[in-house]
This record gives sequence, structure tokens and C-alpha cells, in this order.
Amino acid sequence: MAEKQMGSATFVLSTTPTILGWGNIGGKKEGEGPLGALFDHISNDSYFGETTWEKAESSMQRQALSVALDKAGQPASNLCALFGGDLMNQCIATSYAARSLNVPLFGVYGACSTMAESLALAAMTLDGGFGDFSAAVASSHFCTAERQYRTPLEYGGQRTPTAQWTATAAGAVVLAKDGPGPYVTHVTAGKVVDRGIKDANNMGAAMAPAAYDTISTHLSDTGRSPDFYDLIVTGDLGDLGARLLRELFARDNVELPRYNDCGLMLYDRKRQDVHCGGSGCGCSASVLTALLLNSVQRGELHHLLFCATGALHSPTALGQGESIPGICHAVAISDTP
Amino acid sequence: MAEKQMGSATFVLSTTPTILGWGNIGGKKEGEGPLGALFDHISNDSYFGETTWEKAESSMQRQALSVALDKAGQPASNLCALFGGDLMNQCIATSYAARSLNVPLFGVYGACSTMAESLALAAMTLDGGFGDFSAAVASSHFCTAERQYRTPLEYGGQRTPTAQWTATAAGAVVLAKDGPGPYVTHVTAGKVVDRGIKDANNMGAAMAPAAYDTISTHLSDTGRSPDFYDLIVTGDLGDLGARLLRELFARDNVELPRYNDCGLMLYDRKRQDVHCGGSGCGCSASVLTALLLNSVQRGELHHLLFCATGALHSPTALGQGESIPGICHAVAISDTP
Repeated sequence: MAEKQMGSATFVLSTTPTILGWGNIGGKKEGEGPLGALFDHISNDSYFGETTWEKAESSMQRQALSVALDKAGQPASNLCALFGGDLMNQCIATSYAARSLNVPLFGVYGACSTMAESLALAAMTLDGGFGDFSAAVASSHFCTAERQYRTPLEYGGQRTPTAQWTATAAGAVVLAKDGPGPYVTHVTAGKVVDRGIKDANNMGAAMAPAAYDTISTHLSDTGRSPDFYDLIVTGDLGDLGARLLRELFARDNVELPRYNDCGLMLYDRKRQDVHCGGSGCGCSASVLTALLLNSVQRGELHHLLFCATGALHSPTALGQGESIPGICHAVAISDTP
Repeated sequence: MAEKQMGSATFVLSTTPTILGWGNIGGKKEGEGPLGALFDHISNDSYFGETTWEKAESSMQRQALSVALDKAGQPASNLCALFGGDLMNQCIATSYAARSLNVPLFGVYGACSTMAESLALAAMTLDGGFGDFSAAVASSHFCTAERQYRTPLEYGGQRTPTAQWTATAAGAVVLAKDGPGPYVTHVTAGKVVDRGIKDANNMGAAMAPAAYDTISTHLSDTGRSPDFYDLIVTGDLGDLGARLLRELFARDNVELPRYNDCGLMLYDRKRQDVHCGGSGCGCSASVLTALLLNSVQRGELHHLLFCATGALHSPTALGQGESIPGICHAVAISDTP
């Protein structure tokens, strides 16, 4: 087995790249949520100054990345690579956002797991010795996602109780080979897990088995117990998916003493009509960059396991009778190298 | 600058990972082309034994990967990571193909540049010390691409002279940390380049400037001249795009003495009605795995620069007045480490 490979799917980042800067932007609803005051920017205009929602989402990625670069004190030209993605068909938020950057782009697709996938690859690129700085970005927009995956907003479709609310948000991180932390120490890459869920309005149930697979693989590969982490956070399982994840671990007699889900952290479910919670690439991307990385930097969290989850279906696949495959990528982040 | 970073966008793979096995599958039209006899499998059934074209494309990826693993003499369980993608919305060919594999999956999106992007990341992962074996896979299917990007086949739309034909093909490679070659020596990661082309039936023109940018960056970063390579091959610029690429280099007084395009190699344009040539992720993926890697292995090509090109638009973006951004990732492959 290679020197940095641990167990079946975990990579050790022996040089522990630093997350040097991070930025984000959110929409009106995200601004009204419990993390609203922590965002770098909140826009009450769902078009973010553009003429279409699709262009708005691209602009959100540019703005989040710009803040991350500013905080890192680095120009875009110093990036050896940008990893990014989004939920839109042909990942156009990222492609059009990168158009003005003149930076090598590796587009990724991991559905709502994109922030963890991008962060993982950006960190592995630095750990592999390929550059001094890299970046990761991900976004989602409620209006672009609804009309693409479900029904046009004008249709006014009724939402089911298990539905989640796609976050209008983008988050970006800039990584450096060396720096003061937070440090990326391990990546556990996700495998595709499909337990036969076919309801596109119940993505928590579709993704929970993937989160269970990746987190239990991570714990097994590293020999760590859930106690090691001050917080294990999933991407966006929402209320139902998070309860299913606890149940799956309970079958192994494993408790998750300090566990939360980004989909439950971004909104106040009592006050805000989001049903099972938040979702979308921008959900975990913005919770990571508005709250979690700041907590690690302040020493409030020493060890964080960031596990973004994605549902890898398409409307076409479901129309053809397919079930929803899930994936979850986990990135271990610490305040010490 | 980091030890393995060269110039602005080129990575040196100092351990020169080996491409240990490769496989492919094509459709009827690809079987009738000049490379037909070189494919591992040709299916005259456009459904490849499945009930829908989308499921067919997923099956094609599984079969190409299976052949590559067999030739490499490795079980899937030895792979530290699989990088893969396709043109379908939400990259479902790859996600559903990986469902049965139990292998860590990093989904990528680079439009028709996907084979080079996946191969680049798979090689960088091994060079970074993260595993002993990795894999890359990409596919396209004429029927899934037409109905998604253009019009349903039943519509019988007239094709314009600059149109290309999306290949029904998949290609896969299995890489190893050590082995007898062909060796991956350099990666030049593509930047997004957009010169304002808005015609979705003229992708050669949209992508040629990106190919020019990446190839000239590669030559500048490495200090090599085009003469160094026995073949510089672009992904799928087609006839018009390939001529534009030569023109762009001619402005710099640079000739490309040994240059070809996968879109011109997969079909016989005199006999087969493909207008400007082939396109789609499967075009460069199958030309690489049916012809080029065998030529390197036999010593007929000592140095190959594989430059897959992608058009990063979407029908929605074009409908909103956007132009087509292009990208090109280049991978240098040699018969010596």
C-alpha cells in the first residue's frame, strides 16, 4: 500500500495543507437564518445584480472566491489549480465563474458533496507537491435548482414533508502548502452507495447510507472513534437523513456524541419554512466557510470531520425507474498540523 | 514555486506513473470507422443490451473499465480512486457505473475534455503518493447527447456543415505507481478560454482557442518545441477547429509538424456522414485507448501529447445569450519514464 494510503479509502495528507482564506455569500433566506450574521455577504436580490438566476449563481462563486483570495492575501494568479462545481446542468456556475480568472480549472461533479470533493482534491494537489496555493469553490441557488430538478417556480408545486430547501449560497476556500491552519489532515473518498430510494423529495434517506459508509470507513481506516472529533458534520442530510444516520450507527452500537448536519444549521426550521432542512452544494460550502472554519481557527473546534453528501441522480434517470445513488466525501480538519 | 510545478499551469509527475491497462467499447458507426478493428468491443445495438440509451452509456463505462482492469491484471478493489465523467446531465453514466464497484469515486466534469482531466487527476493522485493503482473513465453516446444538448432524434433536425458527430464510445485506463509504461510525465491543466462563439453547432471554433492556450502554455512551461512530440493530438476539434488551431499557431510562426485530432481519426469523413468529425468525451477516450496507447506501447510513438478539449456551455446558458467557454487539458505520455 502507498505511503499516504490508509485502509480502503482514506488518504493521509502528511504535509497538512493549510486553509488560508475562506469566503461566502448567501441569499435573503440564508441571511435571515441563524448563521446570517456570519456570512461575508448577503444579497436580498435573488439575481445578485445579474439578469438571470444562472448568471447570479456564477457571480456568487466569483464573489465567494474573491473574498477567500483577499483573506488569504493571494492573487488568483498564484493558484496552481481551482477545483469547483455546482448543481446546474453542465456545471455552468463554475465554468462561467472561472472564465475571467485565468486559473487552471478542474471541474468536479459530486452533487451536494462538491465542496468536500473540491476541498479534498485541492488539498491533495498541494500535498502531492504540485503547487503552493490551490482553491475550491461550490454553489447552489434555490431558483436554478428547483426549475432544473423539480418544477419551475411559477408552477407553485406543493413540497412534501421530507423535502429540503436548496440553499442560495456559495463558499470558497484558498489553501496553502504552509500556514497557520486550519490544517487538512485526512481525506476519506466516498464510494457510491444506493439503497434503492426513488423519491427525489427524500434525499436525506438516499444519502444517509453513503454518509454512514464514508464515516464508518474513515473511523475504521484511521482507528479513531467518534469521540476524537469535536464535531462530525454531514453535508445536508436534513432532519430525516440525520436521524437515519444515527440509527445506522446505533445498529453498530456506535453513538455520535457530537454530530450535526449543515442542513440543520443553516436555517431555523421553527421560523423558516424549509421542511427537513437545507440542501445544495452551497449549504455545506457556506456552513463550512461562515461558521466551522472560524470555530477551528478560534480553537473552539480542535478536530472537525466535514462530510458533504451528494445525491447522484438526475430527473432523467428517475424517470427511467432508477433509484438515487448517494456519495459522501469526508475531510478531516484540525487546528494542529 | 512547488517542486512539481513548472511555469503557470504544468505539473511534473516525477514518479512517472504507468498506464497499465486500457479498454474501450464503441457503437456500430465507430465499428465501421478506420479504428473499428482496434476496439475491444463493438456493439451494433445502440442500447448495449439495456432498455434506455442512458443506461446503455453507463453500461459502456462499466465494460470499458472492466477490460482495462483485466488487462492491468488488477481487481477494482485495488484502486485507490476512480476519476470519471460524461456529458449527461448530473454525470449519470459515471455515477451509475460506479455504483456496483465499491471504489472511491471522484466525479469530474470537463465536457469533452473529461478523459484528459480524469487521466491527469488519476496520475497526479499516484504521483502524490496516495495509492498504488487508480483509474479514469469517460464516455459519450450519440443518442443521449443529441436529445440533451440539441433536439430529440425523432425530430430529425438538419445538421449544419460545422456540426460534429458525438461518438458512441467509452474508454478507460488503469494506472499504476510502477510499471512498464506508457508513462505519464506531465500534466498541463486547462484554463477557461472564451472567444465569444455562440453557435452550439460550431464547437470546434469554440474550443480551438482553449487548445491553443493549453498547448502553447505546455510548450512554454516545459521549454519543448512541437518537434519534441511524435504526435500532438487534440480531443475533438474536428476539421474546422483543427484548421483554426493551426492558424492560431501560424500567427506565432509555430508549425505543428505532427498534429492530428481525435475527431478526425475516429471516422472516415469521406465515407461516414459526420460533417466536421467526431466529438464527445468518448471520442478522445476511445482514440486514446484503441489506437494511441497501443502505438506508444509498441514504440511507434515515443512522445505523445494528449490534449482533450471541452466546450463548457449548456443549452440554458446559450438560451440566455451566453457564449461558449472552452477548456483543454493536456497530458504528456512517453514510452520512457
